[in-house]
Amino acid sequence: MQQDWFTRPRLVAGVMTGTSLDAVDVAIAEFSMTEGQPKMSSVKGYSSPFSPEERRGLQDLIGVPHSISVVNDYNVWIGHRIASVVRAACDEYGIVTAKLDAIGMHGQTVWHDPSEHSLHGTPIRATLQLGSHATLAVLLGTIAVGDFRSADVALGGQGAPLVPRFDADFLSDPYRNVIALNIGGMANLTLLQQGCSADHVRAFDTGPGNVWIDYAAERWFSMRYDRNGDIARSGTLHAELYSKLRALEFVYAPPPKSTGREYFSVQRLNELLAACSGNINPADIVHTLTLFTAWSIAENIRRYGWEHATLAVSGGGSNNLFLMDALQGELPQANVTTTDSLGIPSAWKESLCFAYLAYRTLGGLHSNVPSVTGAVRSTILGTIALPG
Amino acid sequence: MQQDWFTRPRLVAGVMTGTSLDAVDVAIAEFSMTEGQPKMSSVKGYSSPFSPEERRGLQDLIGVPHSISVVNDYNVWIGHRIASVVRAACDEYGIVTAKLDAIGMHGQTVWHDPSEHSLHGTPIRATLQLGSHATLAVLLGTIAVGDFRSADVALGGQGAPLVPRFDADFLSDPYRNVIALNIGGMANLTLLQQGCSADHVRAFDTGPGNVWIDYAAERWFSMRYDRNGDIARSGTLHAELYSKLRALEFVYAPPPKSTGREYFSVQRLNELLAACSGNINPADIVHTLTLFTAWSIAENIRRYGWEHATLAVSGGGSNNLFLMDALQGELPQANVTTTDSLGIPSAWKESLCFAYLAYRTLGGLHSNVPSVTGAVRSTILGTIALPG
Repeated sequence: MQQDWFTRPRLVAGVMTGTSLDAVDVAIAEFSMTEGQPKMSSVKGYSSPFSPEERRGLQDLIGVPHSISVVNDYNVWIGHRIASVVRAACDEYGIVTAKLDAIGMHGQTVWHDPSEHSLHGTPIRATLQLGSHATLAVLLGTIAVGDFRSADVALGGQGAPLVPRFDADFLSDPYRNVIALNIGGMANLTLLQQGCSADHVRAFDTGPGNVWIDYAAERWFSMRYDRNGDIARSGTLHAELYSKLRALEFVYAPPPKSTGREYFSVQRLNELLAACSGNINPADIVHTLTLFTAWSIAENIRRYGWEHATLAVSGGGSNNLFLMDALQGELPQANVTTTDSLGIPSAWKESLCFAYLAYRTLGGLHSNVPSVTGAVRSTILGTIALPG
Repeated sequence: MQQDWFTRPRLVAGVMTGTSLDAVDVAIAEFSMTEGQPKMSSVKGYSSPFSPEERRGLQDLIGVPHSISVVNDYNVWIGHRIASVVRAACDEYGIVTAKLDAIGMHGQTVWHDPSEHSLHGTPIRATLQLGSHATLAVLLGTIAVGDFRSADVALGGQGAPLVPRFDADFLSDPYRNVIALNIGGMANLTLLQQGCSADHVRAFDTGPGNVWIDYAAERWFSMRYDRNGDIARSGTLHAELYSKLRALEFVYAPPPKSTGREYFSVQRLNELLAACSGNINPADIVHTLTLFTAWSIAENIRRYGWEHATLAVSGGGSNNLFLMDALQGELPQANVTTTDSLGIPSAWKESLCFAYLAYRTLGGLHSNVPSVTGAVRSTILGTIALPG
């Protein structure tokens, strides 16, 4: 778009607010492009948790019918909330906000329905990331890019995953196969064959990430998650539960595939637990769920990837040391590590992805990978708000 | 934004879908900029009425609580609907859509609340024009600009009116005062003092436009509006009703001021009618309402504008010949005419305005007029979706 965009390094912030409604995560990095090769440096991260009241408000917005005035208010409020967090992040690192060349803002996903359905006779496929980046742009005086998923969905894609472009550009290796694995609520991976271009990556969900482990930690231990995997490490394997979990068909299905809390639901877990004979020690439940999660990821890698590869893990699951150990146990030939060892702080990877996507958008580059989203072609992602 | 944007003429479509939920109105024109002076030529217009089912769906969206999935679907659906109308408009005039340099899309206003209120402790002011211009851009392969009002609202403005910039640039006259008057549901005018710059225009609502006339035509004559003003012409003045109407305080209030269907409501009209003695002949009601509308516009011009001016009328009211005659009768020194005589087809003026605003946005120009919106400063309006 801007003819001179790539002529000098650009300082870009990326903002992610995930479906877990934990926090506003901001990453700031400097990007440059030399002969088509992107570089990223000076990565910084900052996080601002949502208050319980804010989290409840956002949760309600998704589940319960609301008048359009409430949607309208949250759209603008998210823009204000993110502006204040970006300001705080800049303060933390002594960056003058006017020095930011752009902000990439994912927005809050409040609905994602990329399967074709009909409205007034028109076949549509729809996704909605709430958050006014026009508001963000004028509040901070910075170019803001948002609404990254709509264009891919309009082209027949799933609008997700968008991270493979980032993975291909910053984690691939000319001499070695790399698997970028993100363990959030669900687990998803990007297969980066040695020396492959972004157009030929594959990416898919493998099954649950932290979703069931978090649920069990909350229900039986009143903890939001199993810190370091300590609970899991204190339990032992429950063979009957483990065998029921391993019968779940999603794990074996060939890619492309994606999943969510509809399939790996609390209800399904409780049904599996109820079908086991007798009561199970809660620590054994967490232990068994964690081993199942590691197995389901490894099984997908054995079937559809390469056992001899660097497995670069990010997301909350990369802090679960028992899970990381279990992954290494499942895949003895792999080098299981976090993305940090490859220069990408695992906590900020998703935010960095949207900083990078904004950087590409402003340089007029396409960013969706049709081989993973299913779109009919690649395209520029996002809409651009200029600060004026 | 694009450094070379103003170096050649640009073919831009503008799309308006008003709160009356009548139709999708598209105007296409060629814009050029020479030494800061904009020119507009080759204006074409096309309209596609909403079906009753579509209109009901949009009406419901505003009034009744809906799940976020419905908001999401309409957001995308509007993008599809507008894409098909722009395609039809291009077909009608033998224009290859790929020749369009850009589209300015107002979107469907579903909520507008620019007064300050609070959410989670943050003071916000909000407006929402639904319609995914990211979808429009990829469907047509054209740059699409949308969400024109958010930036002004974020800067403390009302986000409206935005038409004064267009009026100043295309209707002002170095040697004569011009008043641009749009008679839609409400009536609003822009005062263009001879030779004034856009930064010094004034603009405000004068009171009702067609809102009460349309209601009476529908209720007593089963017509959507009083075609040519024929019903009004067949009636006579009802002095008691007329005097009650002239007592409405909004008409006299000093600008800036804006109004809507909350003040000039059906309920208020029915109360005024009920307060009159005896039954009133329906044609006399339409006659009296039309004369009141003309008087309220003229009274504002006498108080806050100039009686000796060109009154350039646009909007549906410009087709009501009885109303136009009444305006001329009220303002004998004015030259009452339609914008058509000044080169702006009155039916397409609003759509042309958003084509022009998109044209300015892509050239990096500010478009809100703080003296009329109340914003703390001017800014670039809209967010830009690139087709990729």
